[in-house]
Amino acid sequence: MLQQQPYSPNKPEQDHTQAQEPTYVIGADIGGTNLRLALADNQGTIIAKWSASTVGIRDANVVVAMISEGVEAMLQQTSVPRCSLRAIAAGAPGVTDVDQGIVIATSYLMGWRDVPLRALLETALGVPAAIDNDVNVAAIGESWAGAAQETLDFVFLAVGTGIGAGIILNGQIFRGHGWTAGEVGYLLVPGTSEAPVERGKPGALEAIVGGEGIQEQWQAHWSEASTPLPKSATATQIFDHALEHNPLAQQVLENAARTLAYAIYNISLILNCPLFVLGGGVGMHPALRDATERVLAQRSARVQPQLVLSALGSEAQLIGAIRLALQTADSRAAL
Amino acid sequence: MLQQQPYSPNKPEQDHTQAQEPTYVIGADIGGTNLRLALADNQGTIIAKWSASTVGIRDANVVVAMISEGVEAMLQQTSVPRCSLRAIAAGAPGVTDVDQGIVIATSYLMGWRDVPLRALLETALGVPAAIDNDVNVAAIGESWAGAAQETLDFVFLAVGTGIGAGIILNGQIFRGHGWTAGEVGYLLVPGTSEAPVERGKPGALEAIVGGEGIQEQWQAHWSEASTPLPKSATATQIFDHALEHNPLAQQVLENAARTLAYAIYNISLILNCPLFVLGGGVGMHPALRDATERVLAQRSARVQPQLVLSALGSEAQLIGAIRLALQTADSRAAL
Repeated sequence: MLQQQPYSPNKPEQDHTQAQEPTYVIGADIGGTNLRLALADNQGTIIAKWSASTVGIRDANVVVAMISEGVEAMLQQTSVPRCSLRAIAAGAPGVTDVDQGIVIATSYLMGWRDVPLRALLETALGVPAAIDNDVNVAAIGESWAGAAQETLDFVFLAVGTGIGAGIILNGQIFRGHGWTAGEVGYLLVPGTSEAPVERGKPGALEAIVGGEGIQEQWQAHWSEASTPLPKSATATQIFDHALEHNPLAQQVLENAARTLAYAIYNISLILNCPLFVLGGGVGMHPALRDATERVLAQRSARVQPQLVLSALGSEAQLIGAIRLALQTADSRAAL
Repeated sequence: MLQQQPYSPNKPEQDHTQAQEPTYVIGADIGGTNLRLALADNQGTIIAKWSASTVGIRDANVVVAMISEGVEAMLQQTSVPRCSLRAIAAGAPGVTDVDQGIVIATSYLMGWRDVPLRALLETALGVPAAIDNDVNVAAIGESWAGAAQETLDFVFLAVGTGIGAGIILNGQIFRGHGWTAGEVGYLLVPGTSEAPVERGKPGALEAIVGGEGIQEQWQAHWSEASTPLPKSATATQIFDHALEHNPLAQQVLENAARTLAYAIYNISLILNCPLFVLGGGVGMHPALRDATERVLAQRSARVQPQLVLSALGSEAQLIGAIRLALQTADSRAAL
């Protein structure tokens, strides 16, 4: 701050902090069904959002063009000048080489292979970009502003159609030698199939605990006499129904919970991790959390990780991406 | 090096490197049945060894007194003066708080609880000490001078009576939030018992892949007609017998290998680890390695970690302890 000039009351005090132009970042959550964007200020406060469907879109260039369009729309809506943008970060639904900025592979839905997403974003938007796997980005979100702010070691478990883990050790994302750490959808535990899994098919754990796996088990045992719920019920509806004491729904829930508990037990043995944050459309159902916790409680006092529901829900990835973008802006500014 | 004096050919050149006294460290491998010590020079070359039985010894003070006795014996044998000792490091058979220097818990054999082993060693020997879990120390050995010198990410799997893992990530031992990372003897995979494990009993994985578990399976199916091998055969004898195509021995081997393969597969999914080093009396049998590799090969190209046998064998812990002692000496010298 400049020294105030005496005897010049009309000259306003200059405050260099306030005089600096406000800066902004973009967080992007690229999914197989939706693209979601947020514009946030340099504190991470979201000031605009934008989203669009990605159903049927497989070309990464099209996704990047959509991101450009969304960014433009948010800038216009908020009257933020383009030159105030400092960085963008995106969570991608697949194996991501964070160092090279390349999405190595996504699931069959998008079918990406070796997409240089970071460079595409930097070229399209003219700001530094960072990319990471979407579950890792969600874990960053929960760590920064969600259910895991108090701990340096936790696992974010995203349970939806698929199952993935974002592993935070000592406050840092652990990504593994080949960027695939936390591919827990394939875990083998008592009760899962031992048959080798074909590429593009659900993993052994997903087949019992994932959304479609739960629906399949429901359908396999469904009869009109056993439940008023339709055969086509969703995992969430089935879990709600279990809370209403329907025996068939309870059986499906208990089976999923036991299998999930065994997976968490195994991860916890290996990583000695005290906290699991459950996210995703299936994972966030309280009935699943409670039933899983009951199974874990029966096992051993030595391994008793705490299970909490995601605090950010479907926003976890977007908020994690904002965090990553803020870090990217800072690290580039420091160069 | 001092400048050579001109015109004084009789005055020898002084070499301060050679003039320095040679220094030494002690590595200790504390086990439930044996205590093994080594005296090594500052390059890690072992110049003396000493060992004694620890069967029936539960008092940590007695173990430390035995270590003092062994160190004294090695110093005398090699005529190394006591003042040349720079550090000691010990692997302890239990959960070890490396920061505080405390063995939190060992198995029922020794029954230690919260033993301040580092302080006991420093007091007894008058040199800086470091302690760590024995499987972690063995992993350090394999990383420094054994089967994993080429990689920054690997898991050392010790398969003996019990099963434990030493996890090296990015060149560093990963010990976990509560110092219990790698307690894989309790892993649940298809085929293991789901019954909760009582304290002091073998874990679910150990019951099938551990030495005693293998013997129990052998005994459960043994009959005089099925094999010339006695009912009391050891795991190693049973595996040798499997290589001779005895069907019962092959069945026990295949069961252990399938279960071990599932455990390695799970660890590999979570950690994305490219290399597993198999150690321990059971784990080092080539028949188990080969059979385990066959099961893994059937699963998925995506997760195909390499399995290699420990290069240091029963020396892994002792050599890892020497490495740890050398690092301890260096870090104290730098203060």
